[in-house]
Amino acid sequence: VGRGPSDFDADSAVERAAAGMFHARITDRWNTPAGPNGGYVLAIGVRAMADGVAFPDPIAVSGHFLRPPNPGPVEIRTETVRSGRRHATTQASMLQDGKEIVRALATFADLGAATGKTALLGEAPRLGPPEAAADLFAAAPDGFPRPSLGERIDYRGDAVPGWLRGEPTGDPSFELWMRLRDGTVADTVALTFLVDAAPPVVFELGGIVSSTVELTVHVRARPTTEWLMSRQRTRYVTSGYHDEDVELWDANGTLVAEARQLALLG
Amino acid sequence: VGRGPSDFDADSAVERAAAGMFHARITDRWNTPAGPNGGYVLAIGVRAMADGVAFPDPIAVSGHFLRPPNPGPVEIRTETVRSGRRHATTQASMLQDGKEIVRALATFADLGAATGKTALLGEAPRLGPPEAAADLFAAAPDGFPRPSLGERIDYRGDAVPGWLRGEPTGDPSFELWMRLRDGTVADTVALTFLVDAAPPVVFELGGIVSSTVELTVHVRARPTTEWLMSRQRTRYVTSGYHDEDVELWDANGTLVAEARQLALLG
Repeated sequence: VGRGPSDFDADSAVERAAAGMFHARITDRWNTPAGPNGGYVLAIGVRAMADGVAFPDPIAVSGHFLRPPNPGPVEIRTETVRSGRRHATTQASMLQDGKEIVRALATFADLGAATGKTALLGEAPRLGPPEAAADLFAAAPDGFPRPSLGERIDYRGDAVPGWLRGEPTGDPSFELWMRLRDGTVADTVALTFLVDAAPPVVFELGGIVSSTVELTVHVRARPTTEWLMSRQRTRYVTSGYHDEDVELWDANGTLVAEARQLALLG
Repeated sequence: VGRGPSDFDADSAVERAAAGMFHARITDRWNTPAGPNGGYVLAIGVRAMADGVAFPDPIAVSGHFLRPPNPGPVEIRTETVRSGRRHATTQASMLQDGKEIVRALATFADLGAATGKTALLGEAPRLGPPEAAADLFAAAPDGFPRPSLGERIDYRGDAVPGWLRGEPTGDPSFELWMRLRDGTVADTVALTFLVDAAPPVVFELGGIVSSTVELTVHVRARPTTEWLMSRQRTRYVTSGYHDEDVELWDANGTLVAEARQLALLG
């Protein structure tokens, strides 16, 4: 797949200042209504964790969100935990104004060299072609927030989510298309952002704020198409905490990532 | 719930040697056929991470498995990442013979004080009473391994898994009862073990070895019964990597934990 630098690459880039020390900037260009998207912030950390690692694909990323991020400079301190024959594991601390905002672990592999068994017990979402689907960012009624995330990501759905029409359905699940608006194909680091890029489906239960406590991303393959299908589902809300499971598939029907997060309502 | 010390408490106990430094022993009493159970090892780390934390419940635990653990001494180094009003996050490195076997993060809360919304979009497994169900450890045919885990955990099923009968079904999902054989009610730290305590359902696809790369546990409530119901499912096997999702429910129908792992076949 031909692929040039994307807006996302530029806005998640890190600069190596010393061994295990990086500087980066959390831009205001990937904002939700509550501030910088958590997956975007985590992906900046993954770019730093990937530096110097022999394997390109973050197959398992665990991010614990400690404080709300803000647009502005961020410092990332990394530690190589283990570098093995098949996998390498790195840790990152992300700090703003000296306070840690995210602690993360990532295990990397080379998915291009992984040759084991494949068996899919589930199927890709069945969505009509994205070109014919509703532009969900444009579908938001007057008065809804217009976060900058919607200027960078093209969201398309066969239907408009109930919560976005002001009529939460009570069913916290959704399937949609998304792509980076600049038309580039996401790399496996960008997937750690894209699994978190669509609004929380828990909004179908009536809430409008959800804060991630922990996000796990399992990258399963490299995408080969710019358009990706996302399947989101929240299953259990207990004492204010909720899960959200996300699957991302490329347009060729390849599962590229699975993610789960634990988040707090309100 | 009345609760005395259990075999599991004793075998997962840690001894504080200095600030952020603990000694423990991985016993050979919670072995799978491939060695000490990964969830058991992780739970020892969580006991160390819980030391000095103001909140008792590990609501989000991320364990990256670096090397196979062995029965014997283990050293645990912990770091308090953040201690907040509602959540506290700790990190642990677990070492055997100077080599790191597990790196973990855990975020703690007080689930007894969590009072937010509850909404379950899924249901507890529908299993007959455990007393009437088949003893799965006893059901293993001659020649099957008899790991020590089966002496500590009572596994009961309405049916015997196909792979255990030598006839893999091709459907990697299963529901069963389990409890600590000593009759104690699991605390929320023990749940980080119990989500990993049943054999991998991926065995229904014909394999017999699965190695955990990363295990995430979200503890959702404190169990109130000794018997717990486990729902396991593997959905996607890609290039040798597979997921396994586990839900644990207590006998009163309370969801107590959700877990997902990424593991490698063979």
